[in-house]
Amino acid sequence: MNLELFIHQYVDSDYKPGDPLPFTVDEWTIPKHTILTDYGQVERKAYFLLKGIAKISMIRQDGEERVLEFFFPGQFFSAYSSFLNQKPSDVQVKVLTEAHVQVLTHESMQAAYAHSLLANKLGRLAAEFYYIRKTQREKDFLTKTASERYLDLLHGRPELVQQIPIQMIAKYLGVTAESLSRIRKAIS
Amino acid sequence: MNLELFIHQYVDSDYKPGDPLPFTVDEWTIPKHTILTDYGQVERKAYFLLKGIAKISMIRQDGEERVLEFFFPGQFFSAYSSFLNQKPSDVQVKVLTEAHVQVLTHESMQAAYAHSLLANKLGRLAAEFYYIRKTQREKDFLTKTASERYLDLLHGRPELVQQIPIQMIAKYLGVTAESLSRIRKAIS
Repeated sequence: MNLELFIHQYVDSDYKPGDPLPFTVDEWTIPKHTILTDYGQVERKAYFLLKGIAKISMIRQDGEERVLEFFFPGQFFSAYSSFLNQKPSDVQVKVLTEAHVQVLTHESMQAAYAHSLLANKLGRLAAEFYYIRKTQREKDFLTKTASERYLDLLHGRPELVQQIPIQMIAKYLGVTAESLSRIRKAIS
Repeated sequence: MNLELFIHQYVDSDYKPGDPLPFTVDEWTIPKHTILTDYGQVERKAYFLLKGIAKISMIRQDGEERVLEFFFPGQFFSAYSSFLNQKPSDVQVKVLTEAHVQVLTHESMQAAYAHSLLANKLGRLAAEFYYIRKTQREKDFLTKTASERYLDLLHGRPELVQQIPIQMIAKYLGVTAESLSRIRKAIS
């Protein structure tokens, strides 16, 4: 699915793929392991993922990396807080594989927000989606064990468990690679 | 500040207080300690607070209450995830004092979103604001001690520390009332 089809399906069915969009969209191919936005940079872009896997991570006080999110085709990704408030990012955006993306810029979106119903619908739905997703993840950390969260992943996002190295999944679950090994043995 | 002035200042300066809004707005007075949305209810409303204090709380796995947010005049509040996805709420919305609010309904907002630029701008900015706020709070929990978070509150939101019982502030900081007492003694 590309951005135009996403907008037709989820934002406004009156918009038809091929119609002009009220903001600029570039298309990029990004080599494997590229850091798109690093810690401390201001995020100027948001990406719609056509192919590949992206991840957002942060560094904890103790120097440990934590993975906040993985992204798959058909999803937007960005250092989203920094994209919204244009302050330095405390997360890093990186692609794990070669990736194909459509690129939106902060500048072009802000210009479109002034007058475009479609741009505001898209921006609203994206913000609402990420609010719900963040809230759900926070709630899971408060209420579920690492083992329960791993089982949720296995059932809810099997593609993630198949395609992402186990050490990185451990960083997403907030446990050591050894703990995740024990969890996997206990389950199987 | 009321909703009309808020929209003029933060959403669209072309909108002038007194102009008709593209959604219905009621005005309510709510008695002290009223639960507006309880655990398990679906949130149908969002409130703009004119006077008073509101709080959002959740019950942890171990039965302990945690305060997620306090709200003061000039802010929107709601069981926001439930308002967005219309599933049962896992948070409770309650006013701590008598409160005056302006009330928006999910139904009326959804109808306005179909055609209104102003409604979509408002909905987008609200979702973006709450995303940033939630992300900041998550980051604070990951990177700051309870003592640092209390000092942030004292400096950043002194009205909160003055007007809210200390046991409730402890539940917001995620510590026991005894720990917060010790923190306050160490600081003074």
